[in-house]
Amino acid sequence: MIRLFVPHALAPDAGIALDEAQSRYLAAVMRQEVGDAVRVFNGRDGEWHAVLADVGKRSVRLHVQTCERPQTLGPDLDLVIALVKRGRLETIVEKAAELGCARIRPVITARTNADHTKVARLQAIAVEASEQTGRLDVPQVLEPVKLEAMLKTWDDRRLLFCDEAGDALPVLEVLRSEPAGPWAILIGPEGGFSPAEREALRAKPYAVPANLGPRILRADTAAISALTLWQAALGDWNPSRHVELS
Amino acid sequence: MIRLFVPHALAPDAGIALDEAQSRYLAAVMRQEVGDAVRVFNGRDGEWHAVLADVGKRSVRLHVQTCERPQTLGPDLDLVIALVKRGRLETIVEKAAELGCARIRPVITARTNADHTKVARLQAIAVEASEQTGRLDVPQVLEPVKLEAMLKTWDDRRLLFCDEAGDALPVLEVLRSEPAGPWAILIGPEGGFSPAEREALRAKPYAVPANLGPRILRADTAAISALTLWQAALGDWNPSRHVELS
Repeated sequence: MIRLFVPHALAPDAGIALDEAQSRYLAAVMRQEVGDAVRVFNGRDGEWHAVLADVGKRSVRLHVQTCERPQTLGPDLDLVIALVKRGRLETIVEKAAELGCARIRPVITARTNADHTKVARLQAIAVEASEQTGRLDVPQVLEPVKLEAMLKTWDDRRLLFCDEAGDALPVLEVLRSEPAGPWAILIGPEGGFSPAEREALRAKPYAVPANLGPRILRADTAAISALTLWQAALGDWNPSRHVELS
Repeated sequence: MIRLFVPHALAPDAGIALDEAQSRYLAAVMRQEVGDAVRVFNGRDGEWHAVLADVGKRSVRLHVQTCERPQTLGPDLDLVIALVKRGRLETIVEKAAELGCARIRPVITARTNADHTKVARLQAIAVEASEQTGRLDVPQVLEPVKLEAMLKTWDDRRLLFCDEAGDALPVLEVLRSEPAGPWAILIGPEGGFSPAEREALRAKPYAVPANLGPRILRADTAAISALTLWQAALGDWNPSRHVELS
C-alpha cells in the first residue's frame, strides 16, 4: 500500500490536492488510477484511507475516507550528527527515520571539513523513509550549527556521547541505569572529537559517555548502532520502558 | 596509519612483494615513500609494523619488522542475508565487517528477485572495511545458495531469525536467556519471508525468532541493527559474555 506524507488536515470526506511531485509519483511512476487506494498521514491526525478522485499527469486529487490508525508519536529522541560526506549523511537520515528518531541535528565540530549541507534534500529523504517505514510522523532535520553553540543553549536532555577514544562503558550497560524520557545521541565526525571537545562534553552534567565496541566504526554505522541500542534499551523496541513524545 | 590485509606469512625480517593494486594504492594514491611505515595483517599472525623497502609504481616491497598486536578473532557469528539490491548488499557487507561478523552467507529466498551476486566484489569490500575498522581478520563472503539447501546442511548453530511478520519478542529480551558461542543472524528480503519459509524456520530447533521493533526496516537497517544487538548482548561488545572464535 502506497503511503504519502501530506501537509493537509485529514478528516472524513476531506479533499486533497496533491503537489506536482506527489501527483507525478502516483500517476506516472506508480500508474495509479481513479478509485485506487492510498494511505495518507500528516504527523497530527493519524493515518487515513484515501482514494484517487481525479487523476491528471501533474495534479491528483484524493478523497479522504476513514482513519485507519490513530496518531502516535515515537520517543523524544534527537540524533546530533557531525557533518560527514553527503552519501553517508543521507544514509544516516534514512536510517534515523526508520529507527524512530524525532529530530536530526547536524553539527559542525573541530574535525568536520564541511560547514553546510542541503537540509531540504535531507528532509525529503526523511519524508520518503518515514512513508516507507510505516511511522505516523516525520523526523525534523535542522540547520547545521556549531557544536559549541548547540551546547550553550542545551535544554538539559540526556546526551548519549559516543566516545570511541575513551574508557567509557558499553552503551547497553550505561543505559541500564538511565531514565527513559527526552534523550539525544551524539555521533562525531570520522576523525573523532578533538581533546578540547571531549573535555567539554565530559564536563556536562547531562552527558552520558558510552562506547560502541572494540572496532573503529564509520559515522553511519555508529549512528545506526547507537540508535538501535537506545531504542532497544529505553525506546519503543522495549515496551516496558518506552515513554512517548508528548 | 595505513593498514593492509596481505596473504603473506608475517614474521620478523620477512620481505613482502605487494600485488599491483596495493602497490598502486601506496605509491600513487597515498604517495608513500621508502622508509614510510604501514601495518599489515593476514588473519593468522597478528598485526605487524612494516616499512616500505622499495617503491615502484606497480610494485612495492615491504620489510616486516615487529609484531604490534597478537592475533585475535572476533565471535563465531555468521550473517545469512537474502540477496537484495547491489547498493544495499554492499552496505551490508561493509557494516558486517565493521561489526565483527565472521562469515557473510548470501541466500536466495522465495521473494528475492536475484539469484547471483559478484562475490569477489563483495569480498573486496569486506577486506577494505576490515582494514579500516582495525580488526585482525576479514569476514569470508560465501557463494549464494538457496535458503532451503542451506538449512538442509545446517550445523545446528543458533539462528537468530529476524521475523517482522510474527509475534516474536524483542531481540534483546530473547538473547538474554540464550547461550554465547556459535550463532548466525538471518535477514530476509525486502518483501519478507513467504509463509512456507516462516513455518519451516519456526520448526527448526536451532531457530530463535525475534522482532526488530515496531517499524518496517529495510534489509540493510535490519542487518546492522541485528548485528549490533547480538554483539551488545552476546558478542565482543559485552566482555562478560563474549566467546572468541576458536
